[in-house]
Amino acid sequence: MKVISLTSDPVKGKHGLTVKPDLTFAEVKPEEFDCVIIPGGWAPDRLRRYREVLDFVKNVATRGIVAAICHGPQVLISAGLLKGRRVTCVSAIKDDVINAGAEYVDEPVVVDGNMITSRIPADLPYFCREIIKALEKLE
Amino acid sequence: MKVISLTSDPVKGKHGLTVKPDLTFAEVKPEEFDCVIIPGGWAPDRLRRYREVLDFVKNVATRGIVAAICHGPQVLISAGLLKGRRVTCVSAIKDDVINAGAEYVDEPVVVDGNMITSRIPADLPYFCREIIKALEKLE
Repeated sequence: MKVISLTSDPVKGKHGLTVKPDLTFAEVKPEEFDCVIIPGGWAPDRLRRYREVLDFVKNVATRGIVAAICHGPQVLISAGLLKGRRVTCVSAIKDDVINAGAEYVDEPVVVDGNMITSRIPADLPYFCREIIKALEKLE
Repeated sequence: MKVISLTSDPVKGKHGLTVKPDLTFAEVKPEEFDCVIIPGGWAPDRLRRYREVLDFVKNVATRGIVAAICHGPQVLISAGLLKGRRVTCVSAIKDDVINAGAEYVDEPVVVDGNMITSRIPADLPYFCREIIKALEKLE
């Protein structure tokens, strides 16, 4: 597993945990990845502004798993991946998800083909279980 | 001018300025207002989740001025006010604004009828000037 960020600077989460990115989006080779997990918080609001982020996610989506939680689906909206997909997200962005052409459902985790989405941190056990199941199927 | 918030608790801005709300959305009488100004930051992500906020903005929009800057148009999306409108916003949410049926333009301030929008804090002089002009016309 690799942590990918816009720069190589350490990223500090809202609960104080600091993570050092393994790769920047400029360095990453999308064909080496079978799955991308987009966490929530305010980061997706930044990530969705960058073409290299959207291109990476779109590339992985052509053959692998795309998972997003909380505000993470904002990146899927800007990558143009939500049309006709059944998804969930944090309630704040549900109108954006619907306007992007998705079917929004209020469930702890939603699996639609290669796309796995959840709403809030409390859904993490359901979210992670479905990601692991999907990865096991790939092997 | 009144500062309206979800609760009567003081609100602290990202540069440290604290503002005490004059009214909560539960107390406010929309018919007493000719203009609503929606600031940016992360607050619109919260505000757009509440029916009373959306009802207030929609009510003012029927006869008065609606102004929003940065992430402020997120509230206009959820209030269903953007279809066919010419607007701007912070670049992060431009896809959401377009998906909501608006025409997005990258300009410091956009005036479309009773709707005034701007992109970022640096646009504030243009944003405020157009709000003042529109209020002067109302008198």
